Amino acid sequence: MSALHLYNTISRKTEPFESLLPGRVGLYVCGPTVYGPPHLGHTRGPVVFDILRRYLEHLGYQVRHVRNITDVGHLVGDVDEGEDKLQKQARLEQVEPMEVAQQYTLAYNDMVRLMNVLPPGIEPRASGHIIEQIEMIQAIMEAELAYAVNGSVYFDVLAYAKNHHYGKLSGRVLEDLIAGAGNESRELEGQEEKRNPNDFALWKKAGPEHIMQWSSPWGKGYPGWHIECSAMSRKYLGDEFDIHGGGMDLLFPHHESEIAQSTSCTGKNPARFWMHHNMITINGQKMAKSLGNGITVVQLFSGDHPLLAQAYSPMTLRFFMLQAHYRGTLDFSNEALQAAEKGLQRLWNAAALSKGLKASDRNEYTAADIAEACYAAMNDDLNTPQVIAQLFEAARVCNLANDGKLALDQENIAALQQLFHTWMEDILGVKEEQAADSGALDAVMQVLLELRAQAKAEKNFALSDAIRDRLSAAGFSIKDGKEGSTWSKT
Amino acid sequence: MSALHLYNTISRKTEPFESLLPGRVGLYVCGPTVYGPPHLGHTRGPVVFDILRRYLEHLGYQVRHVRNITDVGHLVGDVDEGEDKLQKQARLEQVEPMEVAQQYTLAYNDMVRLMNVLPPGIEPRASGHIIEQIEMIQAIMEAELAYAVNGSVYFDVLAYAKNHHYGKLSGRVLEDLIAGAGNESRELEGQEEKRNPNDFALWKKAGPEHIMQWSSPWGKGYPGWHIECSAMSRKYLGDEFDIHGGGMDLLFPHHESEIAQSTSCTGKNPARFWMHHNMITINGQKMAKSLGNGITVVQLFSGDHPLLAQAYSPMTLRFFMLQAHYRGTLDFSNEALQAAEKGLQRLWNAAALSKGLKASDRNEYTAADIAEACYAAMNDDLNTPQVIAQLFEAARVCNLANDGKLALDQENIAALQQLFHTWMEDILGVKEEQAADSGALDAVMQVLLELRAQAKAEKNFALSDAIRDRLSAAGFSIKDGKEGSTWSKT
Repeated sequence: MSALHLYNTISRKTEPFESLLPGRVGLYVCGPTVYGPPHLGHTRGPVVFDILRRYLEHLGYQVRHVRNITDVGHLVGDVDEGEDKLQKQARLEQVEPMEVAQQYTLAYNDMVRLMNVLPPGIEPRASGHIIEQIEMIQAIMEAELAYAVNGSVYFDVLAYAKNHHYGKLSGRVLEDLIAGAGNESRELEGQEEKRNPNDFALWKKAGPEHIMQWSSPWGKGYPGWHIECSAMSRKYLGDEFDIHGGGMDLLFPHHESEIAQSTSCTGKNPARFWMHHNMITINGQKMAKSLGNGITVVQLFSGDHPLLAQAYSPMTLRFFMLQAHYRGTLDFSNEALQAAEKGLQRLWNAAALSKGLKASDRNEYTAADIAEACYAAMNDDLNTPQVIAQLFEAARVCNLANDGKLALDQENIAALQQLFHTWMEDILGVKEEQAADSGALDAVMQVLLELRAQAKAEKNFALSDAIRDRLSAAGFSIKDGKEGSTWSKT
Repeated sequence: MSALHLYNTISRKTEPFESLLPGRVGLYVCGPTVYGPPHLGHTRGPVVFDILRRYLEHLGYQVRHVRNITDVGHLVGDVDEGEDKLQKQARLEQVEPMEVAQQYTLAYNDMVRLMNVLPPGIEPRASGHIIEQIEMIQAIMEAELAYAVNGSVYFDVLAYAKNHHYGKLSGRVLEDLIAGAGNESRELEGQEEKRNPNDFALWKKAGPEHIMQWSSPWGKGYPGWHIECSAMSRKYLGDEFDIHGGGMDLLFPHHESEIAQSTSCTGKNPARFWMHHNMITINGQKMAKSLGNGITVVQLFSGDHPLLAQAYSPMTLRFFMLQAHYRGTLDFSNEALQAAEKGLQRLWNAAALSKGLKASDRNEYTAADIAEACYAAMNDDLNTPQVIAQLFEAARVCNLANDGKLALDQENIAALQQLFHTWMEDILGVKEEQAADSGALDAVMQVLLELRAQAKAEKNFALSDAIRDRLSAAGFSIKDGKEGSTWSKT
């Protein structure tokens, strides 16, 4: 079997993955800024890194998965001046910023739970790690790579660039940044405090009107946006850890700045692998409030948005995302989601079918080939679309065997059953929806199926057809087989 | 209508409730120490204060509900020396203390969500408020009511008692405490640092082996257990707020110490009302590991414990708890829980029945009397058992009306429908379980009921009886009425 390879943004190459400590992986993933309801753009990251984590665990690694909650420091426009995103929303709603954080942390966690994303092992909040951030800023100042002005502290990009490569992750060229950034950012308030317009805030002085503020060696203030991830990844994973993940939109300035901060402080490159997932588009367009295509997950799951032809379930959304490679863009459309819904149902039907297959003495298909191809696909930088293609191949085999057109022995039937379980449920993390109600629903359905079998036996076809037709109208299909009838949702 | 009265532990009287700010209530409730799976003992507090919050909101108040997560500082044995509860568990599991905190925070929040407890508006973590705790300790030291020894800081109970009443909440008498505490606590390590054995730790020096530690003016350490609630309630609710809640087991020393800390710091009594719920017993015994009766909620909901005759649903548990007043002990037994399960089902059946009642020209019952009695009961210190008694009266009325033995006009039928909705769902917060599956299940059931109605119309009683009997065997009962048949789970 091949070994796991992952694309590393920092080397721009697909590299073999080896963990720093045998059998253990430290994984840090940038989580949400909790100031609004989760929308489609928030769904991809947690699912992508959930697949990574599930696969690492499947391979036997013990994963310490840290995903932060940004509840302070992230300013509107992702810049260093202006209003804190949390505080802006709080003032509008006339509540405490922490009430806003709580509301949208819960909404985010509801969303990821519905999408069957395993909860991270540690979920640190930026506001809960002010001391750690202050200590890291102090270390950067001791290295003379940051300076305090009027109660704020800025990272000195030019001083850092003398001995380090600022731009190593994003590929940005400092000279271009200097030439470009000057014009646009000069208008922003407070830029005059910086030695260079590309310097970024580590700590910002807070005016008395600012609700979220803490004491620091530089007076009352609050941390800059980038420092939290450096401080929290270091606290929970150490100076060097295995994998840092996030969306491509965070490459610059956020992750580039994280590397600069951590390196200034510890002399070490914090993460060995940097993984970035690509963005989501809707009908070929970028998501933006001005385009009216910012669909929240609540709207997606309820169908309540002008762009949606119907509601889509969390598992449909998850499966849809896995049909694309995480480094490619993912385009949302009703057609694509409906196709994913049907495809997923086809796989569930095949998985159910596999449990009832009758073993033959002969065998005409080697199920182990499919599993091997699945591993090869995952080991090639988590190629989930290829895994899904293999699962459809398994479904085809099950259907052929069920129709008596392909012979499978007990060993290969068991391997197919195991394949669906391992790859659908454990690794891809899709689960059958509404499993909770299956008991009562199935019990009632069995009553109907028995009545229908009895009617057929008594040649009362008016009744047996009526049962089938009414169930069909209610959204259920009946399939008659040699071993009796089975039902499924249509 | 009467006004809301609540029992105030500090005055030992039931007092009329008035909020400090018109229309707004600040409510602080002590949350869990997250170092183990939630057990029965953890279920009562969240439900009791959820009822309070729901009722306050029903009365029109905007409630800022703060419930903390204790993830640091709570030592084994609730004393000042020894191992941190989180860290102890972490070492056993060989994980970060914050992984333990996350695991059991999720387990606790899963439990309260299942029990339909509304999430608090703010859920602050002790480890996330170290700065606020340090600042509060500094203020207490400035008031000369605390002293530092060897990197630890202790609250000076005798100094405080010169001008304040230490024991005002719990009724403990300081002289008795001094006489009693000396003997038992002298053996504990570190007691020799205290001026008086009743002094309690505000900050503890951490040895290098201690994973959870932060810089402070007294060196590396971690906060004592009591200071977190003083610091976090003050941060999010102000120096004075309306209601502080918790279990009776927290009365002393936790809440008594909170009052002492806050008063030392602000000169004010932090909360106007102190509310305490009573404890849970099992078959008349206290819960204790040594008695083998420590049932976790997972065990309760699955039935997987030697003391449990069956599984009980979260709503059965919630309803069962509300059948007792929150200040009385609550004894768990299979008999009592089974009775609660049946009682709750009876109410749901009546609520469903109320929707199909036919209006009469006459009216023989005034439904408004029931609603008035419900308000009177809640206003009398949240007397939920009385509310439930009134709902059973409403059920009796619905059944009589359905049997043609009592005439109700449209207005009173509507009032009964509203009564179930408002009191069952909004205020008591019980909800119909497995509501998610009701769509599919009901659709299939309707197919069966239609077939049965058709069979009866065709005088095919063999078929109509077979449908009823088979559904009965599957756990559903059919009730025929003038308006057609309805079904329910038996």
